[in-house]
Amino acid sequence: MKIVSFVPEPGQYAFTFGGADPVLRVKPGTALSLWTEDAFCGRLLSTSDHASTSLRPDELNPQTGPFYVDGAEPGDTLALHLVDLTPARRWGVSSLVPFFGGLTSTPQTPTLQEPLPERTWVYEYDAVAGTVGFEAQGSDFRVALPANPMLGTVGVAPAQREVRTSLVPSAFGGNMDTPEMRAGVTCFLRVNADGALFSVGDGHYRQGEGEACGTAVEGAMNVTVIVELIKGGGPQWPRIVSDEHLMVVGSARPLEDAWRAGQADMIGWLGELYGLDQLDAYQLLSQVSLAPIANVVDTNYSAVTKVSRTLLPPAEPYQGMHRALRRAADVMGTITY
Amino acid sequence: MKIVSFVPEPGQYAFTFGGADPVLRVKPGTALSLWTEDAFCGRLLSTSDHASTSLRPDELNPQTGPFYVDGAEPGDTLALHLVDLTPARRWGVSSLVPFFGGLTSTPQTPTLQEPLPERTWVYEYDAVAGTVGFEAQGSDFRVALPANPMLGTVGVAPAQREVRTSLVPSAFGGNMDTPEMRAGVTCFLRVNADGALFSVGDGHYRQGEGEACGTAVEGAMNVTVIVELIKGGGPQWPRIVSDEHLMVVGSARPLEDAWRAGQADMIGWLGELYGLDQLDAYQLLSQVSLAPIANVVDTNYSAVTKVSRTLLPPAEPYQGMHRALRRAADVMGTITY
Amino acid sequence: MKIVSFVPEPGQYAFTFGGADPVLRVKPGTALSLWTEDAFCGRLLSTSDHASTSLRPDELNPQTGPFYVDGAEPGDTLALHLVDLTPARRWGVSSLVPFFGGLTSTPQTPTLQEPLPERTWVYEYDAVAGTVGFEAQGSDFRVALPANPMLGTVGVAPAQREVRTSLVPSAFGGNMDTPEMRAGVTCFLRVNADGALFSVGDGHYRQGEGEACGTAVEGAMNVTVIVELIKGGGPQWPRIVSDEHLMVVGSARPLEDAWRAGQADMIGWLGELYGLDQLDAYQLLSQVSLAPIANVVDTNYSAVTKVSRTLLPPAEPYQGMHRALRRAADVMGTITY
Amino acid sequence: MKIVSFVPEPGQYAFTFGGADPVLRVKPGTALSLWTEDAFCGRLLSTSDHASTSLRPDELNPQTGPFYVDGAEPGDTLALHLVDLTPARRWGVSSLVPFFGGLTSTPQTPTLQEPLPERTWVYEYDAVAGTVGFEAQGSDFRVALPANPMLGTVGVAPAQREVRTSLVPSAFGGNMDTPEMRAGVTCFLRVNADGALFSVGDGHYRQGEGEACGTAVEGAMNVTVIVELIKGGGPQWPRIVSDEHLMVVGSARPLEDAWRAGQADMIGWLGELYGLDQLDAYQLLSQVSLAPIANVVDTNYSAVTKVSRTLLPPAEPYQGMHRALRRAADVMGTITY
Repeated sequence: MKIVSFVPEPGQYAFTFGGADPVLRVKPGTALSLWTEDAFCGRLLSTSDHASTSLRPDELNPQTGPFYVDGAEPGDTLALHLVDLTPARRWGVSSLVPFFGGLTSTPQTPTLQEPLPERTWVYEYDAVAGTVGFEAQGSDFRVALPANPMLGTVGVAPAQREVRTSLVPSAFGGNMDTPEMRAGVTCFLRVNADGALFSVGDGHYRQGEGEACGTAVEGAMNVTVIVELIKGGGPQWPRIVSDEHLMVVGSARPLEDAWRAGQADMIGWLGELYGLDQLDAYQLLSQVSLAPIANVVDTNYSAVTKVSRTLLPPAEPYQGMHRALRRAADVMGTITY
Repeated sequence: MKIVSFVPEPGQYAFTFGGADPVLRVKPGTALSLWTEDAFCGRLLSTSDHASTSLRPDELNPQTGPFYVDGAEPGDTLALHLVDLTPARRWGVSSLVPFFGGLTSTPQTPTLQEPLPERTWVYEYDAVAGTVGFEAQGSDFRVALPANPMLGTVGVAPAQREVRTSLVPSAFGGNMDTPEMRAGVTCFLRVNADGALFSVGDGHYRQGEGEACGTAVEGAMNVTVIVELIKGGGPQWPRIVSDEHLMVVGSARPLEDAWRAGQADMIGWLGELYGLDQLDAYQLLSQVSLAPIANVVDTNYSAVTKVSRTLLPPAEPYQGMHRALRRAADVMGTITY
Repeated sequence: MKIVSFVPEPGQYAFTFGGADPVLRVKPGTALSLWTEDAFCGRLLSTSDHASTSLRPDELNPQTGPFYVDGAEPGDTLALHLVDLTPARRWGVSSLVPFFGGLTSTPQTPTLQEPLPERTWVYEYDAVAGTVGFEAQGSDFRVALPANPMLGTVGVAPAQREVRTSLVPSAFGGNMDTPEMRAGVTCFLRVNADGALFSVGDGHYRQGEGEACGTAVEGAMNVTVIVELIKGGGPQWPRIVSDEHLMVVGSARPLEDAWRAGQADMIGWLGELYGLDQLDAYQLLSQVSLAPIANVVDTNYSAVTKVSRTLLPPAEPYQGMHRALRRAADVMGTITY
Repeated sequence: MKIVSFVPEPGQYAFTFGGADPVLRVKPGTALSLWTEDAFCGRLLSTSDHASTSLRPDELNPQTGPFYVDGAEPGDTLALHLVDLTPARRWGVSSLVPFFGGLTSTPQTPTLQEPLPERTWVYEYDAVAGTVGFEAQGSDFRVALPANPMLGTVGVAPAQREVRTSLVPSAFGGNMDTPEMRAGVTCFLRVNADGALFSVGDGHYRQGEGEACGTAVEGAMNVTVIVELIKGGGPQWPRIVSDEHLMVVGSARPLEDAWRAGQADMIGWLGELYGLDQLDAYQLLSQVSLAPIANVVDTNYSAVTKVSRTLLPPAEPYQGMHRALRRAADVMGTITY
């Protein structure tokens, strides 16, 4: 398998889905070895760096890409298999950004209250122990938490001629901020523009479900991804297949609509996989669904509909694409997760 | 430990939280051995029984209780330890109720569309295998799913002189419909009225997160619960402690507000347990929270904020009450989960 | 026409819809001359009285009533014609209540932010000019605004055995907080319990749509209301008929669902009045509806669907009940609006 | 005053805000005489034309423009004075589009229900009487409604490098669908890109508040608009000034957030105009605001915060720009509203 490396220059980031020129053309079947800058463009370096003074509002969630996938046309299905996610720095950082987060008023839900105080936390990443270290600032509490590397953003160019900032999660993927986007999974996205124009970024060394304060343990990431293409069959919402689960990520406001999107798409998916009619699939999903919230802080909120494959008869979604990509990744011999 | 048995007569169910006369007075420290009827009052017996013709709209979610707890006063904390939940019938039942559920319009979110067709599924409960059997009706698909007995409703009388139907989840608990309410956990509820007046019901042999179609595998349940009382300290939202997790269940519409409620309460709880100031607790929770949705179908939606105890230093919430109750349950020697 | 006067003793207020014993039995056709205390129970008397120190949280929105209407049974339609609303004091008062209002976080939409500062405004009511005087506190801005007396709460006992605080707007009416509830209108409510058990309160000398800060110009009110009963036909949501408009008030969260409730009910109403099928009524309403928001601050939000009667052919909703009550009010000779 | 005419060729429409090349450069102070196609691109011509078969999903809300305004830079304020809106056809058309509208499930709020039946209504526009004729299809009900010409879309290029479809209302204006956007008003929009790149379209011969079924009486429109520019001072949300009212249009989901946006911005505006501090402005707005809903059907919902100028002391927002433009329009002598 061909492995192509790409590390963006500082001026080469994309800050949108759609609207940016591709940095590279890749053929289906290519493995990419990428580097992604953190969500803050690397501007928060210590606990004394605060969002309001250190960040540039128009330079958040820098994307590595977009990549033009040869042969990808609207309606097709782009498959991105995350072979490996490895923290690229010895530290990650999280910060309270004024009027951003799940437990503060925001420009979208404004109040007249003062913003929360600013505070930045730096987490040391211990590659050997596989942990990130939380250090309280109002007390001497410390705890090492297991690192759980994931990507906040994986997306393609939107439909309907739109260009969206890399802060937005939607049907094109984007800033979904779900811990399910980890090494070992395959993400399936509907292609909306010639070449798909996908990009990745916003690496998290660890994130809780909901991403309450608005930022995870943000960090630069080394990303290995295999790119595949299936003609036709593009799903309505981003789907994720792992060895253990089938998942759909819905994004909307209010949060129940994000959940509805994922549930409705999963009902269709279960119908296809198992020959169930819609009502039977609705019933079955009602009893087997997991429903972890992804984020309640972004422009749209995201919720995951998640079904354990072990509960159901064997099935090979997308003609076994995930399994094939797992094997291909094994062959690459670079898997570190 | 004193074990008191109570099986309600058919006319003895409560259909509200608050407003009903207690069926029994119990002293803190009492174990109760209870039986609860299913959410349909046992009126759906076969796949040919449909909600619109078989159910009585004012007789849903029958409660066993309420129980008057001696010494419980507003502001206190009621602790209910679920020792055991055992299906009391050989079958459970789930049904599409017209204009009820997560993927249909409802009286609260009305549209002009026709209701979905009605359909009822009967699940055989295999006590030996510990499974419930799903049988599709539009095809011959069948699958045995692990039973996962839980209670849809656990609640006390509401605050502010209110009486709410047993279909409502709120700060007083009620119809939260979360799979986390299983045997082995201790639920902590704020007492709002003298005697607390708690009740339980709505047993589910299995339920997915979100409870998409509106009904789980509903079934009569044998419930063993130990009742304890802590003076003062009543939490704002229902809290659940298991051996592995700390949880808070928020209920509201839209769904993000249910999540916010649980997150905000957990931040306070982590602050108390670990001496964290509010911003540190907010940050820590952002990186460790699990956030499984409970239901997106009831009068209020419910979301769980869930923290793995193994990620954090040892702590004994409520002075070790959960651990003490686990031990007490062991002594009872009746644990079957 | 018989006119019955009732002024509650301080200890005689109801603070719930449902759950309180009736203060009086009235026959259909009776006119009631009532006095209602303000929403604060009269506890805010000057700009130095603040909510957090002066108010009792369990004594807000005191209701005058409930009144038992002879012959009223579940499913019937209670008609309340507001003959006259006259401020009963020389001043009204509005106040910022911590964590209450439309532009602050609240217990239902919690954030970690500090509450807004407290501030109380006293408005002098000039009965001759018909104005209430706003006086800024951070500057010397003053303006006299036209008084626009209205009732925040008009409601009956809820369905499904519930008891709700007088702070809640819902299908039973209650704390809808719409400026449309003014003298000259007739409000139609579905009866849910024998005797209907209606009450009124929460007089506003003036209120903007939305009631942004959570409180209007709150004031004690002299209320003259004629009570009528129509057997059967109880509407799903509160309806209001004025000489100029037909209105339905929906209440829910999120706000779009409050709007949906009113629109769906109005579509049914237009269908009945004009023989329109559902799709034609939907289309017609789309082009003629007014949709003023009522409140975005209460437990449920409320929105009004409002149709100008002059746009449509003459119709006599409820067999001309509003017109008949207007004539009856004229005969009373006490109309001051 | 220079009057520039522009009528787009069929292939010349824009379907986005941002992302399209300007069709014309205009200097501030220019009057434009424009023609706009209807929201359906003129594809619905009779009651037998239905949305699912006649419309192209990627060709809705065609925009006339964008226009590049000389000297306009990000942060500036674009003023668009609607001198005249005159229906350009003898008929308008409204249609039920499957899974689009306020009382149906939609792709954003999916359910498993069937779509509503399709139906298209053609309204004859009587220019002399100034009416549009509604004709029911399920009965022989007919009524002539006053025409109330307005523009559904008025917008500029979005901020943050985004490109949005012309179906979206947001901070950049766009598809706000409020009946307040009528002849005689001045709309103030924040400039986000060099040249502002504004466009107009989606003429409605009449629309109710909320636009329940999703489409108004859609029709081609002759639009006369004067373009002005104020350096700096760009408002956060679209503001509208008429002779009688000050307005702000917020757009978001859920609907309460659209309302919050308009209220918060109006509080700032009242503060500037009258020297009120924030709390006084909050209080004053609470008692004087009107709050008509604009739409509950688009990608974001829109709500108008509206204050009657006659209630408050005289003020000249934007240095009297609206008044100046009214005079300029008078001088043009072409006003027909």
